[in-house]
Amino acid sequence: MDKTADSTGFTRALAGWISSVDDAALGAPAFAWARHAMLDWIAVTVAAAREPLVEMLVAEYAGSRDLPCALVGSPLRADVAQAALINGAAGHALDFDDVASAMHGHPTVPVAPAALAVAQAAGASGKDLLRALTLGHEVESRVGEVVGAEQYRLGLHPTGTTGTLGAAAACARLGGLDPERTAHALGLAATQAAGLKCMFGTMAKPLHAGKAAMNGVMAARLAARGFTANASGIECEQGFGRTQAPAAPAFPATFERRAGMAIERTLFKFHASCYLTHSTIEAVRQVCREHRIDLDALESMTISVSGPHRGVCDIANPQTGLEIKFAIQHLAALAMDGAPTASLALYSPETALAPRYVRARQRIALQVVPGPDRNAATVEILTRDGRTLRAQANVAVPAADLAMQWRRLVDKAQAIVVPRIGAAKFAKLVSVVDTLDRLPSVDPLFEAMQ
Amino acid sequence: MDKTADSTGFTRALAGWISSVDDAALGAPAFAWARHAMLDWIAVTVAAAREPLVEMLVAEYAGSRDLPCALVGSPLRADVAQAALINGAAGHALDFDDVASAMHGHPTVPVAPAALAVAQAAGASGKDLLRALTLGHEVESRVGEVVGAEQYRLGLHPTGTTGTLGAAAACARLGGLDPERTAHALGLAATQAAGLKCMFGTMAKPLHAGKAAMNGVMAARLAARGFTANASGIECEQGFGRTQAPAAPAFPATFERRAGMAIERTLFKFHASCYLTHSTIEAVRQVCREHRIDLDALESMTISVSGPHRGVCDIANPQTGLEIKFAIQHLAALAMDGAPTASLALYSPETALAPRYVRARQRIALQVVPGPDRNAATVEILTRDGRTLRAQANVAVPAADLAMQWRRLVDKAQAIVVPRIGAAKFAKLVSVVDTLDRLPSVDPLFEAMQ
Repeated sequence: MDKTADSTGFTRALAGWISSVDDAALGAPAFAWARHAMLDWIAVTVAAAREPLVEMLVAEYAGSRDLPCALVGSPLRADVAQAALINGAAGHALDFDDVASAMHGHPTVPVAPAALAVAQAAGASGKDLLRALTLGHEVESRVGEVVGAEQYRLGLHPTGTTGTLGAAAACARLGGLDPERTAHALGLAATQAAGLKCMFGTMAKPLHAGKAAMNGVMAARLAARGFTANASGIECEQGFGRTQAPAAPAFPATFERRAGMAIERTLFKFHASCYLTHSTIEAVRQVCREHRIDLDALESMTISVSGPHRGVCDIANPQTGLEIKFAIQHLAALAMDGAPTASLALYSPETALAPRYVRARQRIALQVVPGPDRNAATVEILTRDGRTLRAQANVAVPAADLAMQWRRLVDKAQAIVVPRIGAAKFAKLVSVVDTLDRLPSVDPLFEAMQ
Repeated sequence: MDKTADSTGFTRALAGWISSVDDAALGAPAFAWARHAMLDWIAVTVAAAREPLVEMLVAEYAGSRDLPCALVGSPLRADVAQAALINGAAGHALDFDDVASAMHGHPTVPVAPAALAVAQAAGASGKDLLRALTLGHEVESRVGEVVGAEQYRLGLHPTGTTGTLGAAAACARLGGLDPERTAHALGLAATQAAGLKCMFGTMAKPLHAGKAAMNGVMAARLAARGFTANASGIECEQGFGRTQAPAAPAFPATFERRAGMAIERTLFKFHASCYLTHSTIEAVRQVCREHRIDLDALESMTISVSGPHRGVCDIANPQTGLEIKFAIQHLAALAMDGAPTASLALYSPETALAPRYVRARQRIALQVVPGPDRNAATVEILTRDGRTLRAQANVAVPAADLAMQWRRLVDKAQAIVVPRIGAAKFAKLVSVVDTLDRLPSVDPLFEAMQ
């Protein structure tokens, strides 16, 4: 059997869609969401520019000013694949980037840096970039809904593995690959896809995002030159799916049209803490907003969450900035005090040890309750004047109000980007991203940050 | 738990040995075998320099003359990781490179290009290179003897996956990494390790070797800069072993000293055909040599081999050069005729359709017999003058006579390298490899080929 020629199956169906879908079929909301994802990704990437792991990658792989691709948050430049690597790892360094439930991972961080590097080298437009990002998200979610849960259970990190497929899809479309070469690009991505969950808590976790971006670039650019792979590499016997998730169901043989793109279900992180603490922070804020109270009103609080919170984000007496990110009671006190939970500077030993918060967190109880949604949280606040106030939140529900989401993303970006590049450049950057679908090239993104 | 700090286990034990073992403990035979492996690897890599997949990689990743690393068989140069990628994929393009039973893969092709690139960039000596290659082989075989069979059964390609660990080990020692950083290098290799067996028969198969080399270089060089990973990444819960071979036994917690290095069990390919045909070719040659007969003496022949030959190398009527490589009866006729089975030019449509061989192969029967060794072959030849002559061979037994192995490797190399670079440069190249352990740098290897 000629493995390069198999003409049916999931990989081929995906490839056909990637190479031919038009913007009308993607729909205007997808492009709006893609701008949101780009703003958020640039923000978390700029904010990470001085992280040690980013500086190591820059020292190893960045080069002189005549190289084709710019780096986010650095005046240096790099070759296409290396730019994808560096920007990709930087984007995941703070673990503050977006999430896709269907993918079981972070959808933008493997795709955006790959697409951006290829777009810049090829002189593609802002709309081309947004389209590529949308396609990458779709591939990640279509693959992840079949294998993501099993990958995660077995120990693979879908951001690294499935992310490689998303990056390859985005770059294949940007490169104008036909269905045949797109299928080979997906095959080349499938056979490079790697990343172990046991690396969480080390620099290797963000490296997974960078490698996914880099490998996706390599897959698409080599396929464009005629490099071949198994064109059923995702679904075939002993392919990507079977080796990364042996117990997962079979892939569909066709690309099912749906109302709404996967990118329209992207979940953004608005707090620089563990994602499992976010619903609690939102519920506390909701109570304070509705009833016009703050931390001074706290008599006691009970937080009710699902089982997975235990052992992950229940550090009772945090001592360091990092520990605060996994201290749900301390975070509830910060939220009630109106503290800027998106700001990286908040997560300091001073905040951990501040008597105001140490006293407050001792009055906040955490209980695990049975419930179907692992991400939901309920808070019940007893005020000093004897009222009992309740609210519930679930951040794992995609936003319905896009205008409000944009404002929240701008606020988050401001909190983490202004300390790095200043307010004037930040304002310019936001306006460039806001008009990205009308820009003839992606260069203004980098010009705004200079 | 701080995953970067775990101080026991297989990864740490390997790292300790890699960073500290001395040449006396490795032993002189290991260095001799390393020279053999280098000669063979350079030969198959030079011979592949004009393969389309190599030319695509050169076009995409090679650069100008001021880059630190030379390419094998090309005047262009590349950065360290890219040189490892290109030379690594080239070395596996013909599938004519060496084999390690314990690894369940090709041991030299992921390690040699990585080590050579790092050695050249660092100005390391020939002996440093040979030592690094020996260490890489050892790591591949130690890992492979635990997980190789299961990896292969599940659908992973150990040359790509386990090869990444071998390449990282070699580069870590060349970089002078301490045990701590070597363990992180192995962790970074473990989390990048990829390659699917379903890609066999496409250009992605040799790409696995190149990516293993490149990823090993990246792992070691990033670890040298302080990049962290899970330092138990090979053996830990949900680590390399558990995700690539869930049913494999546990890794040992210590590095067991043994008499003789794994590199001393390397198996070389002396015929440019499917490895399963080699024992048959050797057995036929043995009969012809002992009884001074050739193809003109053939009345009939019966080849007896193991079950795995069926469907792999039993093409009865080959029509193309590629098909000859999987046509054991046709190859037996060629061997009896004294044809140069190491020569790439032999595998042509002309050879496939030559009446002399078409007639002969029709008199050669293939039968599958039960037996413990899948690689062994027995041939029984009935001569025109009525004699029945038998011989048995098994190429999967490491050589005992090193001087003879060197001569055979030189003959093989000559058959495939002289057509590319001519006899004078070839002779120079052989003499450089023969004295590699006394050379202060690896540059003379490339100077010989210019």
